[in-house]
Amino acid sequence: MKLYMSHRAPNPRRVQMFIAEKAIAGIEEVPVDLNALEHKTPEFLAKNPVARIPILALDDGRSLSETRAICTYLEGIAPEPNLMGVDATARAFIEMADRHVEFSLMLPLANWIRHTHPGLAPLEQPQFGDFGESQFGKFTANLGWLEAALGKHEYVAGDRFTIADITAFCGIEFTRLMKFKPGDAGFPNVQAWRDKIAARPSAKV
Amino acid sequence: MKLYMSHRAPNPRRVQMFIAEKAIAGIEEVPVDLNALEHKTPEFLAKNPVARIPILALDDGRSLSETRAICTYLEGIAPEPNLMGVDATARAFIEMADRHVEFSLMLPLANWIRHTHPGLAPLEQPQFGDFGESQFGKFTANLGWLEAALGKHEYVAGDRFTIADITAFCGIEFTRLMKFKPGDAGFPNVQAWRDKIAARPSAKV
Repeated sequence: MKLYMSHRAPNPRRVQMFIAEKAIAGIEEVPVDLNALEHKTPEFLAKNPVARIPILALDDGRSLSETRAICTYLEGIAPEPNLMGVDATARAFIEMADRHVEFSLMLPLANWIRHTHPGLAPLEQPQFGDFGESQFGKFTANLGWLEAALGKHEYVAGDRFTIADITAFCGIEFTRLMKFKPGDAGFPNVQAWRDKIAARPSAKV
Repeated sequence: MKLYMSHRAPNPRRVQMFIAEKAIAGIEEVPVDLNALEHKTPEFLAKNPVARIPILALDDGRSLSETRAICTYLEGIAPEPNLMGVDATARAFIEMADRHVEFSLMLPLANWIRHTHPGLAPLEQPQFGDFGESQFGKFTANLGWLEAALGKHEYVAGDRFTIADITAFCGIEFTRLMKFKPGDAGFPNVQAWRDKIAARPSAKV
């Protein structure tokens, strides 16, 4: 299998961490140069018509895109350690936490960065700076949810490490581009959790 | 079980259609008045800290939020007809299609409507009209992907009806607020598919 990815991009990193947590060997990484718009070429669009990374190219020739769908596939071929839930009910509650992170944290922080950071201008055209700034407020307001949750349980979705920790970690690490630190912004539980996740070997990929 | 929902809102409708397709009986619907900001009350936030509908209140007292996570749970308790994939690989490919719809179609169309329609002003503050207009262009550009896909197979994720059809249908129906019709905009495959889905009994809920 091959993983089409880009260094520093948060969504490929989610899959890379997922692979590292499961110690799946033999997936070749193929860098995609987003600034050169390699994800808009006909060859790439044939693999993923919505022009996003990552993509997992399977050995049977099929291309699987969307970070979370790739993780669902990998969880199927490498069930341990379980990161997405052992039955439908557990899967549902972990998916809930993962989507709270995606839609309430990652989405506003991505819009904040993509619409305000000059380095992201090649990828986000046109940039709407006022909209981008407003998304920072939504991101930090929603971070209050995660701060409270991490005061009640050790990990994002409960008492064990799951895919929701990977999603939240890769999202929050992306805010380092903006020099944002949860601890300095009034989120000590998020900072302590972030530091704990950063110490995992999978966070070094 | 109780489903906290709002009439006309696309995400609750996705769950309502999913329930109807599976003919699950006995789920009481509890309307939430979004314009009165009932989803921001302490009682509601105790059920879903990120203040979104729908929520499925389980009989054991737990609250499950996020449309797709609710569907994962319901698929577990009512496996037939299968709408999300019978094994991990099938689940992954259907999740891919569902997320292509969510991120490439529903997200820009929701931003287009929420940032430009006066009726959505109570829910989206501040509205950024220029950003909203730009999202219409992204929505229609991405609709080209669905148009091409529906030229190759009968349903959004392949040759059978799945959750991805529900997601796409409820999203595209929401554009009626803006008087958008896929057929008039140059997407005949999408229009024909939309009309076919609209004829299903589950689309009448």
